Amino acid sequence: MERSAIIVAGGSGRRMGAAIPKQFLLLQGEPLLFHTLRAFHAFDPHMPLVLVLPADHHTTWEDLCAQHEFEVPHTLVAGGAERFHSTLEGLNSVLHDGLVAVHDGVRPLVSPALIARCFNAAMVRGAAIPVVPIPSSVRRVEGSTSHAVDRSALRAVQTPQCFKVDLLREAFELPYDPAFTDEATLVERLGVNIQLVDGEDHNIKVTTPFDLEVAELVLGGRG
Amino acid sequence: MERSAIIVAGGSGRRMGAAIPKQFLLLQGEPLLFHTLRAFHAFDPHMPLVLVLPADHHTTWEDLCAQHEFEVPHTLVAGGAERFHSTLEGLNSVLHDGLVAVHDGVRPLVSPALIARCFNAAMVRGAAIPVVPIPSSVRRVEGSTSHAVDRSALRAVQTPQCFKVDLLREAFELPYDPAFTDEATLVERLGVNIQLVDGEDHNIKVTTPFDLEVAELVLGGRG
Repeated sequence: MERSAIIVAGGSGRRMGAAIPKQFLLLQGEPLLFHTLRAFHAFDPHMPLVLVLPADHHTTWEDLCAQHEFEVPHTLVAGGAERFHSTLEGLNSVLHDGLVAVHDGVRPLVSPALIARCFNAAMVRGAAIPVVPIPSSVRRVEGSTSHAVDRSALRAVQTPQCFKVDLLREAFELPYDPAFTDEATLVERLGVNIQLVDGEDHNIKVTTPFDLEVAELVLGGRG
Repeated sequence: MERSAIIVAGGSGRRMGAAIPKQFLLLQGEPLLFHTLRAFHAFDPHMPLVLVLPADHHTTWEDLCAQHEFEVPHTLVAGGAERFHSTLEGLNSVLHDGLVAVHDGVRPLVSPALIARCFNAAMVRGAAIPVVPIPSSVRRVEGSTSHAVDRSALRAVQTPQCFKVDLLREAFELPYDPAFTDEATLVERLGVNIQLVDGEDHNIKVTTPFDLEVAELVLGGRG
């Protein structure tokens, strides 16, 4: 079955406190996104990769690729206002009816093994996402108060989120809703049960300077 | 107002996959708990510290303290079957009616500044805990299905959890309930509103080998 991956990198990097968008921050001397694209390339060097970036970052990206002689082939697509629109733009450039992975650009530490697990589960079940337990107590804030939430049933969602392409296309015909925070949220509105697979502790979302240090550590250890 | 801190270290370290309990694992060449106790000592060297450890680890602990010439004064207390019982044992050795902090032994990276924020908020409001946003999407598992949860109102709870001593004593007169996962859960059953203060990204709970690597990284950077 044909497979593609859409790497979504729409963030502005505000939480990072940096002047440059976080997807361009350097990790082991290279833009963070290089590592993300390389993980998917390592999983399957023949799989088409679609990178969704805000249009006003395209020149920067192309300069960075040239400057570092970045070796991973990919298609560059302009993102939209929200994650929803960016993923849809990526999906529009997937030209088969096989499987598609949607992955956060700022999760550079994903392993080929996890990508394989998610694709395999999606092939059988239609939709599969990686999740990990939440190790701390959790509270829900309501106005000026809060209350404890039973965390045993909660899971933190990672990416890649993998789907049969026709299922994801159908989900994107639903009207835009700001409650949409990931692709699984949308697909389950079709009545599809999302298969949960075991994620990875290392597969962190790099959104703070601390996360960037951790990512350096992990890559250093792998090196 | 008098203050004490109870450091609770009851875990067996099963998630760590190590033969020795995680609180004894080495961080920068010293047992992890040394760093935790030292953080509270740095905040206030005159504040009494109570360390709650399972009784069958006391000899190991005392040997480690002697071997490393550990310099932070503290009272050692035997823990109970669950966190509830361990905290209560610690509370029974707090001899004043001021403020008390209850802290996870395996959060060695807490800063003196965060300890101060929590104590200060508890002095005014009776009960205060540090929380941080949850950066990923969250799902709730229900049997063989799951559904998306709005994460914007969710917070991950850290420690130290700080309380007026009389309030915490009153809360511990409530019957034991397995739903009790932290001290705030118990205190809010008295009808007390828990003040939330900003936690710290660095203040992680060390429960996996990966967490231990991250903790090494952070301490190395501070060194």
